Amino acid sequence: MALDPNCLFCKIVRKEIAANEVLRDDHVVAFHDLNPQAPTHVLVIPTSHAQDLSAFTAGADAEQAARLLHAAAEIGARFGPGGYRVVMNQGRDAGQSVFHLHAHVLAGRAMAWPPG
Amino acid sequence: MALDPNCLFCKIVRKEIAANEVLRDDHVVAFHDLNPQAPTHVLVIPTSHAQDLSAFTAGADAEQAARLLHAAAEIGARFGPGGYRVVMNQGRDAGQSVFHLHAHVLAGRAMAWPPG
Repeated sequence: MALDPNCLFCKIVRKEIAANEVLRDDHVVAFHDLNPQAPTHVLVIPTSHAQDLSAFTAGADAEQAARLLHAAAEIGARFGPGGYRVVMNQGRDAGQSVFHLHAHVLAGRAMAWPPG
Repeated sequence: MALDPNCLFCKIVRKEIAANEVLRDDHVVAFHDLNPQAPTHVLVIPTSHAQDLSAFTAGADAEQAARLLHAAAEIGARFGPGGYRVVMNQGRDAGQSVFHLHAHVLAGRAMAWPPG
């Protein structure tokens, strides 16, 4: 997997667009969502382009995939001492709007069920 | 990580309790949720006990963690040709009710935002 020159989140990975980052390493970048749905709402993205979870898990090696989950948990623990919800949307039915895989980490309020 | 004799989902892993399974391998078991929140609502759980995502990512090796994500995507693709949502709840704020990590895979209807 490489970067896509037309992808908004690839531009954040390359620092061509600024984001309010909370974590960055070789595998992932995490930053605050511009339209937060909870007191803390952070997006965790892989540093290489994959349009969605299905493409990501098909293309990523185990270390990359595990790191995405690990980073989400790390951010959840940091911002959500009372708990947190991790959400990944794939495709139209789920309302996916940016086609570079991202895990939402929401924390800081009680969350309802069903999850949307 | 081992199994917990008092854990409901460990009993499903050991087949002491029946579940409507859709996938089983060395790393994960997946089965239909008893209280579905969408036309398809499947839970994916690791075959060893971890109470939540933070405990799982702290204790699992990369292959196990990657497999959880991969299985969720596999099930999403199978049941959600129009898209799917993957949700993991950690702790009180998120409404976690069974303390053995599980990824919810929801598909088959349009989903709202925020995710609960």
